[in-house]
Amino acid sequence: MKFVTFIENGQSKFGCLDGGDVIDLSAFDPSLPSDLGTFLRAGGDLVALGQKAKSARREHRRPIGSIEYDVVLPNPGTIFCLGLNYLLHVKEGPYQVPDYPTIFMRGKSSLLAHNKPIMRPNISDKLDFEAELAVIIGKTIKHATKETALTAVAGYSCFNDATLRDYQKRTTQWTVGKNFDQTGGFGPILVTPDELPLGASGLKIESRLNGEVMQSDNTSNMMFPVAETIITLTEAITLQPGDVLVMGTPSGVGYARNPPIFMKQGDICEIEIERIGILSNPVTDLY
Amino acid sequence: MKFVTFIENGQSKFGCLDGGDVIDLSAFDPSLPSDLGTFLRAGGDLVALGQKAKSARREHRRPIGSIEYDVVLPNPGTIFCLGLNYLLHVKEGPYQVPDYPTIFMRGKSSLLAHNKPIMRPNISDKLDFEAELAVIIGKTIKHATKETALTAVAGYSCFNDATLRDYQKRTTQWTVGKNFDQTGGFGPILVTPDELPLGASGLKIESRLNGEVMQSDNTSNMMFPVAETIITLTEAITLQPGDVLVMGTPSGVGYARNPPIFMKQGDICEIEIERIGILSNPVTDLY
Repeated sequence: MKFVTFIENGQSKFGCLDGGDVIDLSAFDPSLPSDLGTFLRAGGDLVALGQKAKSARREHRRPIGSIEYDVVLPNPGTIFCLGLNYLLHVKEGPYQVPDYPTIFMRGKSSLLAHNKPIMRPNISDKLDFEAELAVIIGKTIKHATKETALTAVAGYSCFNDATLRDYQKRTTQWTVGKNFDQTGGFGPILVTPDELPLGASGLKIESRLNGEVMQSDNTSNMMFPVAETIITLTEAITLQPGDVLVMGTPSGVGYARNPPIFMKQGDICEIEIERIGILSNPVTDLY
Repeated sequence: MKFVTFIENGQSKFGCLDGGDVIDLSAFDPSLPSDLGTFLRAGGDLVALGQKAKSARREHRRPIGSIEYDVVLPNPGTIFCLGLNYLLHVKEGPYQVPDYPTIFMRGKSSLLAHNKPIMRPNISDKLDFEAELAVIIGKTIKHATKETALTAVAGYSCFNDATLRDYQKRTTQWTVGKNFDQTGGFGPILVTPDELPLGASGLKIESRLNGEVMQSDNTSNMMFPVAETIITLTEAITLQPGDVLVMGTPSGVGYARNPPIFMKQGDICEIEIERIGILSNPVTDLY
């Protein structure tokens, strides 16, 4: 099943894809929570919801080409991001090969929707792209095991972990460079795990800047795959429905190129993950 | 004015102190939002609310000694924590003296209330205390100036940024060691800025373990004071009502002592900030 969040009459709405249609779920069933995060926190099952929604009448359907996208999960819990999860990216840093996931967090104000502009701030011209797999958690889980870890996943999406490289490295902690307003593209579609290989492994992941391939790798090359990351993190932290794991980026980022490439006003950056979708964002200068 | 969040019949409630009483605000005025975070996000003014609540009748009052505390802000936005903000703590690390705030984040599952146990996980015995000033943001602010920065502050509270030192240093990013479940004490009381010196500067800040003073310093020794931190952060990030800044810890932490001191089952850790309050938490082993 595939889900989106879209904006209609200034309101954020939770929708389900069926063929070429988006079903407006709050119109289809007014008893449903009004957003994906609230649906997940209330224990909702996306696959069952998607099956049920197939019976939606014409007046609850919109052509998918007509919708304005919101952030796919507009009301997330904690967003845990992995650094250094693809070996070739670790080497281009260069960084030391880690034996434990390198974790930082993103706040909600750093997110933006499919087709909305990534904002390049006026205090840095070191805006870099990072193609990543996003994992949306659907169940409360602590002390996950090999058997239980992936049962906590509600779905997968695309993420562009766009980074101000100078601010990332201004101190030892990367947080500020990873949290500028409206730099983290998230969407357009949540795909439920039943439609994908186990742990979303074996999928091609790519970023393109103005159509030119910048990063191209495969999710099977993550050093800490989805299940292992959930097992390791939940030794320490309870993951909650609506939390997000952003799984790190492959090699080919702009700062490690010779000469370096940074994003500028008018660029278009696309993140594509096989069978999950294409996240596209223009870049706009923020004054 | 002073505000608390307390638990009654299993429900988290928003309260205001008046003399020795806690006023149950949702009973006093059922049209009020049910929690502090929602009140702030709706643009509420705590000082005006506190004045109004003084007229509360006896049946809406509880003796302060009788309440069970919840996390003072149980539904926070993004929690930005500063490292390395007191010079003597930087030197005991030892770390380099920073020229920019060192920022990491905490997620909601890491928080706990006054009097509730700090949970020592079974995978680490390196549980350390950190006395800190917490700043609760009350207004949306970007590009703050010297004139506007402190107008965004709704109040101040105490924070115990308890840390698993081995996990903090397992990779370059401190996130996991700072986010174990139920390690971050937050409360008991929010004090509005009109009751305190500008920027909560010049206040004695102390931690005590089983009554023995471990850290003792003054908030005037923060290298990045509250206003400057808001100015610097909002060059990059929009702060929102309900966001929190946790302002870093003075010297005297356990790991830097000779011999080191770590917290263990049965300990009592207190964080006291002059005119703001005492946050007290026992330590319990988590199995």
